[in-house]
Amino acid sequence: MTGGPEAGKRPTLEQVASLAGVGRGTASRVINGSPSVAPQTRDAVMKAVAELGYVPNQAARSLVTRRTGAIALVISEPEERLFSEPFFAGVVRGISQVMDERDRQLVLVLVHGPSERRDEPAAYLSPQHVDGALLLSQHEGDDLPQQLRDRGLVLVHGGRPPGVEGASYVDVDNVGGARAALAHLLSRGHRCVATISGPPDMQAGRDRLRGYREALEAGGLTYDPDLVEEGDFTEPGGWRAMRTLLARQPGVDAVFAASDPMALGALRALREAGRAVPSEVAVVGFDDSPMATLSDPPLTTINQPADLLGREMAEMLLTALGTSGTDEPRSIVLPTSLVVRGTT
Amino acid sequence: MTGGPEAGKRPTLEQVASLAGVGRGTASRVINGSPSVAPQTRDAVMKAVAELGYVPNQAARSLVTRRTGAIALVISEPEERLFSEPFFAGVVRGISQVMDERDRQLVLVLVHGPSERRDEPAAYLSPQHVDGALLLSQHEGDDLPQQLRDRGLVLVHGGRPPGVEGASYVDVDNVGGARAALAHLLSRGHRCVATISGPPDMQAGRDRLRGYREALEAGGLTYDPDLVEEGDFTEPGGWRAMRTLLARQPGVDAVFAASDPMALGALRALREAGRAVPSEVAVVGFDDSPMATLSDPPLTTINQPADLLGREMAEMLLTALGTSGTDEPRSIVLPTSLVVRGTT
Repeated sequence: MTGGPEAGKRPTLEQVASLAGVGRGTASRVINGSPSVAPQTRDAVMKAVAELGYVPNQAARSLVTRRTGAIALVISEPEERLFSEPFFAGVVRGISQVMDERDRQLVLVLVHGPSERRDEPAAYLSPQHVDGALLLSQHEGDDLPQQLRDRGLVLVHGGRPPGVEGASYVDVDNVGGARAALAHLLSRGHRCVATISGPPDMQAGRDRLRGYREALEAGGLTYDPDLVEEGDFTEPGGWRAMRTLLARQPGVDAVFAASDPMALGALRALREAGRAVPSEVAVVGFDDSPMATLSDPPLTTINQPADLLGREMAEMLLTALGTSGTDEPRSIVLPTSLVVRGTT
Repeated sequence: MTGGPEAGKRPTLEQVASLAGVGRGTASRVINGSPSVAPQTRDAVMKAVAELGYVPNQAARSLVTRRTGAIALVISEPEERLFSEPFFAGVVRGISQVMDERDRQLVLVLVHGPSERRDEPAAYLSPQHVDGALLLSQHEGDDLPQQLRDRGLVLVHGGRPPGVEGASYVDVDNVGGARAALAHLLSRGHRCVATISGPPDMQAGRDRLRGYREALEAGGLTYDPDLVEEGDFTEPGGWRAMRTLLARQPGVDAVFAASDPMALGALRALREAGRAVPSEVAVVGFDDSPMATLSDPPLTTINQPADLLGREMAEMLLTALGTSGTDEPRSIVLPTSLVVRGTT
């Protein structure tokens, strides 16, 4: 151990072991919390620890380096969405690559709802266990980011967090992507263009809806709330929304779905309704996930660079950790682009 | 704090703060590793910590309770497979439910290859950060389980780990499931039944191949290595294997794929080859994942209870942690069952 003030005065593990009358390995096991040690041995070691004022290595080390080497990725979604959307896989892959290159450990923490957001994950997510946190899929009104900041964790958000001031984030150009989707549909002559929007408490949902509306109005069309149906970014959500739209506006000739899973759900609903794609109804998704190439017909969609988003988030966090003290918020917005396939 | 031997003698945070001439909150921030503290303040607090021999709360607490409240789920797969296979989502959901009910924090740790298995994850996976670990998708020859056990972590495996003696695990009846798949195909009159097998370094892959072989021979047929093609449990792997099988054995009239993604890959290859399913070639998968109902035709498959597997793993680990000291290996094997849909 180097660098700690008065480090030379600290009692050693060897002294603890010797006072307890056990081997160094046994003392280490007790101090590291191993459960497979006889109770009387554990008591002897703990008594020696207390008598000598021994500070366990890891705690001592983290007092000196103030680093655990680990970074948390906190995802505020149910397992269902996390695992069904390739977007998350891409982001996690990008983050993992950087963590591997820079020799950091990534731990994933899923938070499911407001109550869990407040209790256990926040308790675990402390400088004791991780140096910083990457947050994905933030919903408005979630107080987890503030809790983590209060505990001294450095944070970087994936996607601009709704209603959070002064946060560092990496986002993709959601408004521009939605605009490109609409411009494409309008250029193909579609005039009754619906949208299946994302959750309104998520910034990506809001931004994609804003892009839809702006492009419609730029194209001289009127924004019609009857052509907007909210989804939850999932396949079943897209299927339900498409059915609702077809019932409400049978004349719909195109739909922009704010995620690929919702677009695939819309394709399923259109197939069931006997509407031909793209001749009767055109469909554009958002993500360009691998599943976009597997549907029949393959999906026209907006590419967002999920891997790169993950890489940039990780780099931003590691940079911030390397310059601790300065708390300047940073942000990057990555470009999106139209990929034309069979559904338009 | 209660229960620690000679606990009354420990210096308090207040004493540290007072000696350093700062507030209690500032002292706490320094000790918890917050980076947003002025360097001279940090130095003063750390000097006080060293002078008084102060043991940070968390370390003191974990010396007393020997528990972090956190459990790691270690998955030895690339992000790609983790996120593309609903099996993992089901297992994680089952584990999460138990952890939520029992107020434990679940952290996911992905290990990608032999080198990473040896270094970073093992370093993080210590009693300092987690109380125990659940291991999924173990490959033969991986020394991570032994490393974790040496560090004093309690382990439970999902799936019987290949080549590990005395391990606790929850498995599904892979041999019985494969036998049921074959019995179904043979009962429908198929006689040239191929299999797309899983990775041979994974016990699930081996067991499903064994079930295939045993059922063939029980049905009076000869096991023919030309009818066996190895996949890697993924969709592209199944697609490649089916193409190889069709080229080698054009007369194949049925195929048992050892996972649903591989079965879907096989369906794609059959569609491309112009073979009608099920009239020309019947297909059975293994998993009964949600995607099995979405294919066209929907997939006949073997149901394995992924959620329940996760729940049982979590319960087994928490039980073992509650009875620390006794290291009796436990095992449970959950039943699998045939689900007949459109591909047979």
